[in-house]
Formats: sequence, structure tokens, C-alpha cells
Amino acid sequence: MNVGNSAKVSIITIGDELLIGQVVDTNSAWMAQELNIAGFEVHHRVAVGDIWDDIWEALDQESQRSNVVLITGGLGPTADDITKPLLCQYFGGKLVQDAATVRHLEYLFAEVFRRPLSERNLKQADVPDVCTVLSNIRGTAPGMLFKNERAVFISMPGVPHEMKGLMTYHVIPLLQEHFNPGFIEHRTLLTAGIGESDLADLVQTFEQALPGFIKMAYLPHFGMVRLRLTARGKQEEKQSFISILDSQFAQLQEVVKHVLVVNEDISMQALVGRLLKESGTTLATAESCTGGYIAHLLTAMPGSSAYFNGSVVAYSNSIKQNVLQVSASTLESAGAVSEETVIAMAQGLLAVMQTNYAIAVSGIMGPDGGTAEKPVGTVWIAVGDQNRLITRKLSLRYDRIRNIELTATNALNLLRQFIQE
Amino acid sequence: MNVGNSAKVSIITIGDELLIGQVVDTNSAWMAQELNIAGFEVHHRVAVGDIWDDIWEALDQESQRSNVVLITGGLGPTADDITKPLLCQYFGGKLVQDAATVRHLEYLFAEVFRRPLSERNLKQADVPDVCTVLSNIRGTAPGMLFKNERAVFISMPGVPHEMKGLMTYHVIPLLQEHFNPGFIEHRTLLTAGIGESDLADLVQTFEQALPGFIKMAYLPHFGMVRLRLTARGKQEEKQSFISILDSQFAQLQEVVKHVLVVNEDISMQALVGRLLKESGTTLATAESCTGGYIAHLLTAMPGSSAYFNGSVVAYSNSIKQNVLQVSASTLESAGAVSEETVIAMAQGLLAVMQTNYAIAVSGIMGPDGGTAEKPVGTVWIAVGDQNRLITRKLSLRYDRIRNIELTATNALNLLRQFIQE
Repeated sequence: MNVGNSAKVSIITIGDELLIGQVVDTNSAWMAQELNIAGFEVHHRVAVGDIWDDIWEALDQESQRSNVVLITGGLGPTADDITKPLLCQYFGGKLVQDAATVRHLEYLFAEVFRRPLSERNLKQADVPDVCTVLSNIRGTAPGMLFKNERAVFISMPGVPHEMKGLMTYHVIPLLQEHFNPGFIEHRTLLTAGIGESDLADLVQTFEQALPGFIKMAYLPHFGMVRLRLTARGKQEEKQSFISILDSQFAQLQEVVKHVLVVNEDISMQALVGRLLKESGTTLATAESCTGGYIAHLLTAMPGSSAYFNGSVVAYSNSIKQNVLQVSASTLESAGAVSEETVIAMAQGLLAVMQTNYAIAVSGIMGPDGGTAEKPVGTVWIAVGDQNRLITRKLSLRYDRIRNIELTATNALNLLRQFIQE
Repeated sequence: MNVGNSAKVSIITIGDELLIGQVVDTNSAWMAQELNIAGFEVHHRVAVGDIWDDIWEALDQESQRSNVVLITGGLGPTADDITKPLLCQYFGGKLVQDAATVRHLEYLFAEVFRRPLSERNLKQADVPDVCTVLSNIRGTAPGMLFKNERAVFISMPGVPHEMKGLMTYHVIPLLQEHFNPGFIEHRTLLTAGIGESDLADLVQTFEQALPGFIKMAYLPHFGMVRLRLTARGKQEEKQSFISILDSQFAQLQEVVKHVLVVNEDISMQALVGRLLKESGTTLATAESCTGGYIAHLLTAMPGSSAYFNGSVVAYSNSIKQNVLQVSASTLESAGAVSEETVIAMAQGLLAVMQTNYAIAVSGIMGPDGGTAEKPVGTVWIAVGDQNRLITRKLSLRYDRIRNIELTATNALNLLRQFIQE
């Protein structure tokens, strides 16, 4: 490829649904992450609608800015998908049928979908004769690679798992083959119990003394703040730069040690899962206000059945009584959202689930259900084992979804502290 | 504002975390949606890193393209946040302390955060003297409005709930006051049980006969396809255009009636929730492979406690036996992933939860755990009431997260069919 030695990557996402907000663009984040790991930097991302002139202009502009332009979306079989004819015209080609894609479509419809291959589906095999076809083993629309004097352009479907296959099997290997990527290395740690500003004060001296090739970023999320150090450089500098990065990262951990949760870029649930797995112990949850979200966070991870036994989502009081054996008198005197109730829920859960650890939560997530005494955002958490339970009260002040997320993360963090103590 | 009559909106999101994929940009989708409802069209979105020249160039380019430029991110109190000094220089101002913001910070730290107001936090009250300050009641960094001969620029923090407050209380009212928005109306329906291509064949004649001001889009999601009709026009055309849109939408519903789920843009869980609420009935779920995700989908909606009693997340066999009373012999002879087991789970659930309806699911979500006889993606679902249960088997072929999502949606859809029959 006649595109110089180092790659500058732009991502263009195409689709009206992105501009009217009907769909959240998760593709770009995934692509950026994978490219980063492979040593490539995305420095510009743009979203345009299914509009001929806007897409055309984006191709012009991004290829002036970058020498690699990755395009997702607009390749479906329906009339609102105009990317393919546009690319054909942009690069001065004409549509021809690609034999390998026809064979793949025949296979897909005969063996996987088990329905007839329609004329409309067969059109997915028509590609501009000026592109290199990249096979899409997970779907019907192939990837297409184009070149001009400014850049390499690769067009992929917007369906996430199809795009991911193309990126993994074609795009990243191609870029690695044809460009000499610099290196990008991140070191990320997670803190809890400190706000972004206080954390910034804490690390100010450290931050100002960082060498120029290392950049620090603050990433607040779910009430916790991650700190990320990023080193960038040329391949030949990699070894020495990374050793400096590691030593700086060790220093940073010292500076924040009283609020440090973990010195890796992993989620709280992954951390808790690992602690349980390593110690061969098990967990169950009794969830009122989080409604199964803690269980979902844990079970979304492969292999969680090794340490997660299950959950009682006790949304109604009758389930707190019947399944978790919370007494009617506790519910009446202290209320469903109280320290007494979450302790009783955790005890009942340990009895019925026979796990080593229990998490129990009850709260008022909003927008309704608050009282003067227990306003929306009041949450009680209990975590522990057969011998000991500890509790915490939260006073949240966000919307329902965020309150659910924050409660889940806080409950998992409390269990982490309990286990690590 | 000296910016013409109709608004063209660009969104610039600022932050390295977006370009390395550490964070998914949900802000842009929300902003686009709200702007759309208010009659404004976002026609370009761009993401840039915390890099001076890139942000500067984005301001230049987007203000050539649009007369409203909304900017999120980069306003935090830490050293990687460079948006404010950049905007100050871009518009030729100097930083001055804003008295109203100081008062708001004093209030926030005294009453809400209950910690001292540091020098660093107080800096949030410094604003360029060439901007109009928009108060941010949900956080420390105020919004800022700038104008030049090309466009109006509004800068907001990237923290979602702060941005949402600024959009709702300031940005959208300001735009509505100063621009004469056209109208944008959507009509969306949800189909199930038909692929995108077959659906396109089904509606082809209808689609080709649509008037020019109505556009149709296909939105596949979780194994279902939404069809959206969008009408655009001037305010004076609104009445007549919407009446045509409604009549076209009625026709479309006729065309797809055998695969139509609902003629609204609502989620499957919202639809099921409404059916339950309207009939005064209740639901519980017994979830093995979905691990609480169905319960989470339902409880993430306000008011779900009216119809959702809870869930037993039976990730281990012992819970299927102890809580749901699935017999050891059923689990042994038929296996945990079988029609017999999901029927027994549903029956046990109805007994313990005393709800009108039950959903029970068990399956192998991957990546491990499959066998030749029951490969990864094998799922059994049972739904029903005390009198009758119906079952369905799924054979999914995606990754773990997608398999969980598809199982949840299919289970909810099966219950919808059961209720509506």
C-alpha cells in the first residue's frame, strides 16, 4: 500500500439511526480498543446519516486527515443502505458478482439459515470491481477494501458481531502487515471512595513530574475513578519507554494506595469473580432494588458458574418473607429498606443458597417511592458470610438506572473489601 | 442570535477515552434523540481526543457545516481537561470568575458533598468573559455559550446526568427560542420472526410508493426488526404531512400484520410490562442461563413493582432443586437444559412466587459448556400460568452477551404471545 509508514486511523459510522439517537454506537469503542491494542491510534471519529453527499464529504475529509479510513454501516440488503453504490461511484468502479461471496451465501442459506436464497440476498455478492473483497464469515455483506492516492478505505457492515469478525480476521492483520505501528501502552488502576478533584490534588505532584511521552487521564465511572497512564512512542523506543511506564505506574500506586482498588483495567465484577474463583468460594445475591442487575453483571462473564450460585430477586415483600425468611415483623417495624431487613435477607439467603458469601440490597431507586424519612436514593447493603455481616447505607441522588448501577458497584466493592480484609 | 432561521446541529465529543474505546459514547445518542423530538436535526457527529489542534480544527470544520455546535467533555477539574482554556483562546476572551457559579459551588460543597471547597474546585467558576454562562445545577462545571459570525457554540460537561440537565433546562429551550425548527415525526413498529431481507421483500411495493418526504429505515436489534417511517418538513406543512404519515403507517401495519408485534417504538419489556399492568396481573422469572437479565430488563423500568414480583436466578442445580423444587431425577434424566427442566422450573416458580405468569429459561450461553448433543446456544424457554405452559427451543449462534440478550427478548416475546392469545 502506497500510504507511508505509520497509520492514522479515522472511523466513519454511517446510519440515520445514529444521528437520531435510536441506537448507541458501541462499534466505534470496540474498534478503537482493538486498534489501540494492535498499536494503532484512532484520532478522529465521525458519524453521518444515510445521505449521499454527507457520506461522500466524510470520505473526502477523513482521507485528507488520515491514511486509514474504516467505514461501518449502510451495507444491508435494504433500500436505505446506500454505502455500496456510493463507494462504487467514489472509486470509479462498476458492480460485479463476486464468486466467493456467492458460494458463501449459498452455504449460509442452505446450512445455517435454512431458507431459500432470494434475489435480494444474492445482491449482497455484487461488489465494486475496484475493491478487494474481505470475506465476512459471520454474515452476508462482505467487507471491501479500496485505495486511492491518499488512503486505504475499508468498508464493513454495522452489525457488531460481523464487524468484529472482519476487524479480527482481516483489518487488523492487514494494517499490521502494511504499516509500521508505533506502540501504545496503557496502565490503568481503579480507585474508590474519592472524588475526581480530590484525586487530582492527591496526584498533582506526581502528574507534573511525568515524562513527556506519558499522559495521564481520569475516568470517573459508576462513582469510582480510574487513572490511566498512556505511553506512546516508536517501536525502537518501546522497551525503554515501557520500563519507565511501569516504574511510574508503581509510584502512582504508592501515591493513591489508601484508595486503590486494583492496579488493572478490570471491572469490579471481574475482580470479585476472580477473588471468589481463586479462593474456591461461592456467592449468591438477594436483590430488591437492583432487580437482578448484580446477578446479571456476574453471569455476563464466562465461567461465572464456578463461583456464582444464583440470586433471589425479591422485588415484592412476599418473596422476602417466603423465600428469604425475612420476618413480617422486621418488614413492618423497620421497613423493606432498612439495615435490619438487608441483614435478614442476607441471613436467609445464606441459609437457602448454602454459599460462602452473600450480598443483600434493598433501596428506593426512584423516580417514585420516596418518603421524607427515606427519600429516593436511600439504599441499604449487607455483605458477609455465616459468621459476620457488614452493612452500608447509601444516599444516591441520580436517576433510576444510575442508582441501580451505583448500588450494584458499591455492593460488589463492599464484598471485595470484606473478602480482602 | 445572528444565525439564520433553521438550525443545523453538529455534536463534538471530546475525550481520549472515546478514541481508545475505554468508554462508549451514550451522550450523543441521547442528545440526538432529544433534539429530534424538539424538531432539530443532528447531521454530523465527531469525536476527537484531548488534543489542542484536533479540537480547534473540529470547531472550525463543524461551524462551517452547521450553525449550532454542541460540545461535550473536557471540562473537568483535572489537567487532561483542556476544553475551557481552548474555547477561551478560540473566541478571544480571558478567564474571569463567575459569581453565580461560585455561589453554586459553595452551596454544592457545603450542602451536598459536605466537604471543603478546594482551590481546584473553585477554578470551575472561572469562565471566558466572552461567553454566556449556563448554570449546571447537577455539577460543578457550568455550561458556556459562545457565538461567532458562523455559529452558536455550547460547551457542556461530559458527565451524562450533568449534560442532560443542561440540555433540558438550557440548550433545547434556547434553540427553540432562537430558531424556527422544522418538524420531524417518526412512526416506528416492531416485527418479530422475520429477517431483514424477507421483510424488505414484503414491504418493497409499499416502500417504493412512499411520498418523497417520508423515509423508511430498517433497524434490526436483538433478533427483531423495527421499521421506522420518518417525515420531515417545514412547520407550515406539518399538519398535512403528518396526516399522510399516519395513513402510510396504517398501510404499513396492514402489510406486515402477520409479523407485527406492536405499532410503537417501545421495547419488548415495556410492552410486556404494560400488558401485565393493564390486566392487573403479576410475573416472576426463573432464570438459569440469563442470570437475572430478564429481571433486570423489567426492573430497570419505573413502576415495575406493580407487576413484577421477583426472580429466582437458579445458576446452580442445587437452587433449581431447593428453591424451585425441580426433582433430581428430572435434572439427571433430561439435564439442566431441557424442556422437562424449564417446565418444572416454571411450575416450581409459580408455586413459590404465587404470580399469575411465569417465565423459565435454561440454556448454554458459551463460550464453554456445549456438547455434541446440546451445543452452545441451545436454550429452552417455558412461559405460562397455573393452567398451561408453552415451551420453545432456541438454537443461537452468537457470543455470550448476545445469546443472553436474545434469550431474554425471545422469552418476553413468548410470554407476550401467550398473554395476547
